[in-house]
Amino acid sequence: MAGISLSRARVMIRKTLERGKELGLNPLSVVVLDAGGNIIAFERQDGASPGRFQIAHGKAYGAVMLGMPGSAQMARAEAQAYFIAAANGAFGGQLIPVPGGVLVKDSKGRVLGALGVTGDSSDNDAAAAKAGVEAAGLVAEV
Amino acid sequence: MAGISLSRARVMIRKTLERGKELGLNPLSVVVLDAGGNIIAFERQDGASPGRFQIAHGKAYGAVMLGMPGSAQMARAEAQAYFIAAANGAFGGQLIPVPGGVLVKDSKGRVLGALGVTGDSSDNDAAAAKAGVEAAGLVAEV
Amino acid sequence: MAGISLSRARVMIRKTLERGKELGLNPLSVVVLDAGGNIIAFERQDGASPGRFQIAHGKAYGAVMLGMPGSAQMARAEAQAYFIAAANGAFGGQLIPVPGGVLVKDSKGRVLGALGVTGDSSDNDAAAAKAGVEAAGLVAEV
Amino acid sequence: MAGISLSRARVMIRKTLERGKELGLNPLSVVVLDAGGNIIAFERQDGASPGRFQIAHGKAYGAVMLGMPGSAQMARAEAQAYFIAAANGAFGGQLIPVPGGVLVKDSKGRVLGALGVTGDSSDNDAAAAKAGVEAAGLVAEV
Repeated sequence: MAGISLSRARVMIRKTLERGKELGLNPLSVVVLDAGGNIIAFERQDGASPGRFQIAHGKAYGAVMLGMPGSAQMARAEAQAYFIAAANGAFGGQLIPVPGGVLVKDSKGRVLGALGVTGDSSDNDAAAAKAGVEAAGLVAEV
Repeated sequence: MAGISLSRARVMIRKTLERGKELGLNPLSVVVLDAGGNIIAFERQDGASPGRFQIAHGKAYGAVMLGMPGSAQMARAEAQAYFIAAANGAFGGQLIPVPGGVLVKDSKGRVLGALGVTGDSSDNDAAAAKAGVEAAGLVAEV
Repeated sequence: MAGISLSRARVMIRKTLERGKELGLNPLSVVVLDAGGNIIAFERQDGASPGRFQIAHGKAYGAVMLGMPGSAQMARAEAQAYFIAAANGAFGGQLIPVPGGVLVKDSKGRVLGALGVTGDSSDNDAAAAKAGVEAAGLVAEV
Repeated sequence: MAGISLSRARVMIRKTLERGKELGLNPLSVVVLDAGGNIIAFERQDGASPGRFQIAHGKAYGAVMLGMPGSAQMARAEAQAYFIAAANGAFGGQLIPVPGGVLVKDSKGRVLGALGVTGDSSDNDAAAAKAGVEAAGLVAEV
């Protein structure tokens, strides 16, 4: 099965962190999930607050489970807050519906998993995530 | 009580999926619950995101447990969001209060269960669900 | 991605139910999960008790998440009960560590998902599951 | 407090995985927690089952939160199973009380965090973890 290998997950994380540094962002935390929503790899940079795993995970988990990146979840939450609140309940409170949860796709558009980034503004998180995904030769739906 | 047999549940699911195809909808996921809110059958079409069981289930579960189809729950959520949020708490976060959760009734108006459909817009989900219920010779309260 | 298609999931469920009938078993319930532990399809036969989804799901979910079929989980539970109890806690109480949770593999030994069967004795559940998996041209680790 | 930096966490993970390879172990999953029980880094090797994060995390989390490595928790579970079960309840079911949960200490004996390893036998997991901690110039209480 052509999923995300650990070595590719490492590339995505390192490149996300590098981009964060280039952009002068706060310390970032990055998680990579597979197509089933299970965790492949995670890193939290020195100086990030201790609960960043849960935030990064929630961004990526919602993206892959709903098939919607964080920006689309945020738009839905702004239009229909109770729907996103209810979806969150159905997933045990594990969704974080804002940018920084990015779908990872192959060149044919198949979802391979998701990247979740947190630490700076949601839009900056998403920009760093996009750079990380693309550096691994994959496609980011932000 | 003459509830929903497995063979009738299969008919409802298949016909819902067929209608989805006729209407050109995204891949759908469909669950059938009995009058007690328990699961009889579920199918997720190829290409649907992995978390679609939770969404389909939440739509159908809220419909049967509250005796209100998704459209009525949505109207209540728009009018009184905290009520639906509170109801959701009482049911362990399992409700998804939008169209696509359809009550299944017999010709005398007795509730036999519910169908939950997700994958496209909520209104399209509900339209496919209605077709599935009616194809099984039952009545849909959408 | 060469996962379990819905049509193959249907074959596994039908063949499991047919084998149950041939063996004179009680009404069965059968779930098919993908390689990430997410639900593809489920059916509960007429006459089965209402909570059978949770049991079937727990058997299959533990198998795929731990990479151990129900028989191996049961052996571990008999040797070291507190380990399996603890693992169950780590998965939110969702594991049912007895036979009837069967890994579904391709001919190269890759795990594609799991089948969970409940309704009769655990060993009979597992026998029916094995028949269902093999009827779909796949390999069952029971 | 000079805690575990991300770069040191990476060294521990890499060296744990290298030792696993040298010993011919199954694919491993490794988590590093800080002194507050929060996640710094995690990696799951290709071929490991999808639920390995939960197991690795439970081993490390119990070690750091109770100040007892997995071997000591296991001894307590064998002597007084209900105590470990009760402790697990108090921590939301997140403890996995077997070897492979290793306390990470500095040369003065201060606990800096924990390493959790899963994938092979508990004793092999612990041996790989010990190698990983020591390769980072720290002390492992196994």
